Amino acid sequence: MNTFGKLLRISMFGESHGAKIGITIDNITPGLPIDQSFIKECLSKRRPTGPNETPRVEIDDFEIVSGEFNGFTTGAPLTILIPNNDTKPSDYDKTLGLMRPGHADYTSHIKYSGYEDYRGGGHFSGRLTAAIVAGGAIVLQALEKIGIKIGSHILKIRDVEDDKFTDIENQIDELNELYFPVINQSVLKEMSSIITEARLSNDSVGGIIECGITGLPVGLGEPMFDSIESVLSHAMFSIGSVKGIEFGDGFNFANLLGSEANDELFYENNRVQTKTNHNGGINGGISNSMPILFNVVVKPTASISKAQDTININTRKNDVIEISGRHDPAIVRRINIVLRSMSAFVIADFLIQRYGINVLREGFNKNN
Amino acid sequence: MNTFGKLLRISMFGESHGAKIGITIDNITPGLPIDQSFIKECLSKRRPTGPNETPRVEIDDFEIVSGEFNGFTTGAPLTILIPNNDTKPSDYDKTLGLMRPGHADYTSHIKYSGYEDYRGGGHFSGRLTAAIVAGGAIVLQALEKIGIKIGSHILKIRDVEDDKFTDIENQIDELNELYFPVINQSVLKEMSSIITEARLSNDSVGGIIECGITGLPVGLGEPMFDSIESVLSHAMFSIGSVKGIEFGDGFNFANLLGSEANDELFYENNRVQTKTNHNGGINGGISNSMPILFNVVVKPTASISKAQDTININTRKNDVIEISGRHDPAIVRRINIVLRSMSAFVIADFLIQRYGINVLREGFNKNN
Amino acid sequence: MNTFGKLLRISMFGESHGAKIGITIDNITPGLPIDQSFIKECLSKRRPTGPNETPRVEIDDFEIVSGEFNGFTTGAPLTILIPNNDTKPSDYDKTLGLMRPGHADYTSHIKYSGYEDYRGGGHFSGRLTAAIVAGGAIVLQALEKIGIKIGSHILKIRDVEDDKFTDIENQIDELNELYFPVINQSVLKEMSSIITEARLSNDSVGGIIECGITGLPVGLGEPMFDSIESVLSHAMFSIGSVKGIEFGDGFNFANLLGSEANDELFYENNRVQTKTNHNGGINGGISNSMPILFNVVVKPTASISKAQDTININTRKNDVIEISGRHDPAIVRRINIVLRSMSAFVIADFLIQRYGINVLREGFNKNN
Amino acid sequence: MNTFGKLLRISMFGESHGAKIGITIDNITPGLPIDQSFIKECLSKRRPTGPNETPRVEIDDFEIVSGEFNGFTTGAPLTILIPNNDTKPSDYDKTLGLMRPGHADYTSHIKYSGYEDYRGGGHFSGRLTAAIVAGGAIVLQALEKIGIKIGSHILKIRDVEDDKFTDIENQIDELNELYFPVINQSVLKEMSSIITEARLSNDSVGGIIECGITGLPVGLGEPMFDSIESVLSHAMFSIGSVKGIEFGDGFNFANLLGSEANDELFYENNRVQTKTNHNGGINGGISNSMPILFNVVVKPTASISKAQDTININTRKNDVIEISGRHDPAIVRRINIVLRSMSAFVIADFLIQRYGINVLREGFNKNN
Repeated sequence: MNTFGKLLRISMFGESHGAKIGITIDNITPGLPIDQSFIKECLSKRRPTGPNETPRVEIDDFEIVSGEFNGFTTGAPLTILIPNNDTKPSDYDKTLGLMRPGHADYTSHIKYSGYEDYRGGGHFSGRLTAAIVAGGAIVLQALEKIGIKIGSHILKIRDVEDDKFTDIENQIDELNELYFPVINQSVLKEMSSIITEARLSNDSVGGIIECGITGLPVGLGEPMFDSIESVLSHAMFSIGSVKGIEFGDGFNFANLLGSEANDELFYENNRVQTKTNHNGGINGGISNSMPILFNVVVKPTASISKAQDTININTRKNDVIEISGRHDPAIVRRINIVLRSMSAFVIADFLIQRYGINVLREGFNKNN
Repeated sequence: MNTFGKLLRISMFGESHGAKIGITIDNITPGLPIDQSFIKECLSKRRPTGPNETPRVEIDDFEIVSGEFNGFTTGAPLTILIPNNDTKPSDYDKTLGLMRPGHADYTSHIKYSGYEDYRGGGHFSGRLTAAIVAGGAIVLQALEKIGIKIGSHILKIRDVEDDKFTDIENQIDELNELYFPVINQSVLKEMSSIITEARLSNDSVGGIIECGITGLPVGLGEPMFDSIESVLSHAMFSIGSVKGIEFGDGFNFANLLGSEANDELFYENNRVQTKTNHNGGINGGISNSMPILFNVVVKPTASISKAQDTININTRKNDVIEISGRHDPAIVRRINIVLRSMSAFVIADFLIQRYGINVLREGFNKNN
Repeated sequence: MNTFGKLLRISMFGESHGAKIGITIDNITPGLPIDQSFIKECLSKRRPTGPNETPRVEIDDFEIVSGEFNGFTTGAPLTILIPNNDTKPSDYDKTLGLMRPGHADYTSHIKYSGYEDYRGGGHFSGRLTAAIVAGGAIVLQALEKIGIKIGSHILKIRDVEDDKFTDIENQIDELNELYFPVINQSVLKEMSSIITEARLSNDSVGGIIECGITGLPVGLGEPMFDSIESVLSHAMFSIGSVKGIEFGDGFNFANLLGSEANDELFYENNRVQTKTNHNGGINGGISNSMPILFNVVVKPTASISKAQDTININTRKNDVIEISGRHDPAIVRRINIVLRSMSAFVIADFLIQRYGINVLREGFNKNN
Repeated sequence: MNTFGKLLRISMFGESHGAKIGITIDNITPGLPIDQSFIKECLSKRRPTGPNETPRVEIDDFEIVSGEFNGFTTGAPLTILIPNNDTKPSDYDKTLGLMRPGHADYTSHIKYSGYEDYRGGGHFSGRLTAAIVAGGAIVLQALEKIGIKIGSHILKIRDVEDDKFTDIENQIDELNELYFPVINQSVLKEMSSIITEARLSNDSVGGIIECGITGLPVGLGEPMFDSIESVLSHAMFSIGSVKGIEFGDGFNFANLLGSEANDELFYENNRVQTKTNHNGGINGGISNSMPILFNVVVKPTASISKAQDTININTRKNDVIEISGRHDPAIVRRINIVLRSMSAFVIADFLIQRYGINVLREGFNKNN
């Protein structure tokens, strides 16, 4: 449904063209500082800007209506509201009855027996991720204070590939400052060209994002059904357009021998490490002291202006659609901060399950 | 944890070398026939056989100790026990203190503060998937009776690739009869050679499995956090060795334009279909009438006989391990039925959430 | 935490003196009419009025910001916001550091490590029940349309007792129209006198409420941990001031013999009934066709103006408190609609679990 | 369903006349000692003995088949199996089709569409509480080691009343040694006489049990839906025959003024206490340092040998039943240890949620 998490629990609500979207974060550690400017900074990373992104003006004024007192979390449910200001329903009237290919228009129409709010994708709109980012900012910042960093960059768009993480701790700090996060700055221009080209041809592109998490204690995650991979993937696939995830060497494991895929362990200064990190920091679903590494693939934006065949649910006939609203030729840049936010919720929940409710404020003993 | 599912809920227990492993299926539709021979058939698909698989004799005698009456499910929790007969703890004494690379030995040792049952990987052993298969058989059979089929085949081992699903309804029926499920029989020999070669060199290989689900109603799945992708991936990553999942075109979406990635809709005989199935039967997390398609990557078996560097947790020194137990050079064949079983639990749970508890016995109206 | 329900799930947020309180209802049946005037009517039943209730003006303007489209539920999360207008924090400044006896001041102070919003009880305030009532109204109305009624009346205040339910179907209809719901109108004056007396002596009173639910199908509820009694009691105790619940003959069962306590069954016109209803419509946690009956005890309002000994958490010394804010000498009248609302959520959730998501719109077959 | 708990989670399975009953405890703190003799001692408290209890021989051999290693919990799911040896299905053949009044026979028949295992009440049998007791013993013992005691006694059977807790810490120790736990030994004979009388007249009696929990930290429990009262009542009502629960002064709160019901706070030696304990150790759903106190009412055993009117579900006609099986004239003595066991699970779960997974082994800092 629209609630996620076991102890740290988020609930989402809202539609693309409704009055407000929002997030409620339940059972959050009391006493976490709420840094309005950092929330704004995170929101600005998700906000569309520049010629290559939707001209919909997302001001993302947010209001924290509960769970905050004197600038800190109280421990009671923290709710953030974001109003929908720049909605132009007229854009969508034109497509009324025409099911947009690649979107949830048809599936939600059947699921909700025709009662769905279809405007702009309604509840299925990427618009809701703004609330995830606003709430995630609080948790991202708390994690950073106790030594856990989460970073990501655009690894691939069509045939252009960025470098993979090498010196991850430092790279994360740098990437988190960038508008368009890539490790190898020389790919920036090529990627931009691809996106511009897609826009000019009324089309869109997707991409692959590499994510990394550092600073975790060993022993985080749960056996079987709540492995780190299970819960992180669950979280990632709740973000629209995500269609694949792989941990460590991922699909390349099919090409390797066991002797190439295993990560040998060794002590260095009494601390356990592995020589390689094929397994992406996770063994048996549990963190092993190495950085968590995973790739997420984002499909090309489904909304394109090109004419497409589709059905009209009102006339019950085949028809043609040209989507004239405001759309992104690529959301892969904007989705970075969403992935990081969702990852933050997952990691924070695991920490609370293991160390108790105050861990996000007090930290944990790395040797335990 | 060790419980999965919202309304149809499974709980797992047991260790590789404990007395018994087991599964409890809670809130299952009453009145489903329990076909002991089909359960045995499914177990036999997971059982190691032939020179290329572990010589551990897994007899998989199972006992249903609750939830069955007169050959039918009662609706009360159904528990299946499987005893561990052919355990040779001596194999593992040798490795005591030596953390096997690629396994959960070290991570579980830290997680459980040193109290873990380390024999054969304990609770993290693939042995537990036998219970998943036994329970999954009941649900797989029920689903088939109401028109839903789940099938899979080995798509790739190293550089050998099987064909992808084309005529999926018929292919599933054929694949489910095969010992080593591939669509293009000509790849069988090559794949076997690769596995044999790995075995002879004391090594192992992984692979990619393609799964398909047909016959679903439109509108299954939930928005945001319980998308079909979220819940299926959660289930798949709870199976040891799985390190990646992709739906539809998956990671290849990064290479496509939106106009290539969208699936155009059309009416045929008043029934909605899409011309292509890039999205793997899912839009916005909800089923769209096309077959659900996804690939899962399985890493090479972590247990290999080759010498590997590692740590000894008892001496707290670096050391070398040669794993002498009984191991599989490839588990990719055996894991097929496990993926299908877990998928069955996921789909059945979604159906019950939408149509009520008796849906697995009574079926559903496809037009609703 | 602040989320309740298995399939139909409510999440609460807000504080007595925060910006807004709210409720999110997730996974609600799409297509339920939203009757703003009925929501207002329900809110008016909870609102303090008359000399015997707090003069805090609770206007209860509410705003539905998501999950509604064209006057119907969409199936997406429905969020209702209620602003806090008439807050007078100055009332509470006076008691800063003084822990009010009978309240959660001290327990929440420790629980939240001193970060709690202490104003007016913060998140523990009865104020939040306004949001429960607003959301419950939608479900209460839907239930009524499919034949399920929920009613309650004030059974006892100190030594004055109302009659118990006899002709429950008709009595519920009448009670739901009343400002101060009692079956025997002659106790109304006596109860009012007791409340007035308590008010004039700066004190307060509690009471017992009898609740009834009619029209349920047989077979609702789950075995063991989700018996109707378990889930209803869970819901009732989530309402502040509730300190006891009993089903059917309740605590009087201690005085009865088995032959007096059992309800004998019989067929009448092919329909099963019981001659008596000692068990309050529930056997083994499952509904049995008779009305569900339960009593709930509400303790006297903890806020009283009389001087009370207490501690000052700032000075860490013993002290005396005189609570000068605006308080109710009795909340037993106002709490009726809250109990009915929470009961509605519980019953609707059970129905959805058994019959599927559309049951609140389409109803159910009583013979199944 | 049959799973309970948020982080510490128990799952139950089995039927009165099935092969085995069992419990799985998931996410239990690793490293807790498993004391087989204490488990046996707890089981012996639940076992029927003496002329006034069912002659069914419940040997309660139990087997721990997972989650234990070298005498300690491992942290993996711990499953305990108890075989059903002395089943006499013939007793129940006689009543086939006759729905026993006061039992779940009819409600489960409808709920499970006629597929229920009806023998001896099947899954609804009190027999399953043996597994709760076996598992609860491990947790009860762990709690005692970190300073938390749970005790209970028979407060009332018909018109005979025991004293209430006064010096609870010491009284719990004494009560836990007794076969028939009462504080005032002089009521023992009277209570026994009432039970004997009921037995001789083929009838049964119920009673009220007072429970107490000491040694909790302040601040345990969650706001709103997971108040201590909510979760404890949820747990208590999952035990068959329980029909009411009240905390602190409970239903007597209806007779009190606020000034009589509030518990005034004071510092003594820098430790906060309350002068009275009307609220049973809980304010706003959160523990306040005083003992948790609650009463539970148990209805008279539904199985009586007296002739009772009922329906025959096979003939669909009215009929008469005389239950000739082996029954208890009173289960109130045997149920004590069940209530204590369920309370232990609830408290342990709250502790883990607040302090992390290792709290049951390492304890907690009372000042936090």
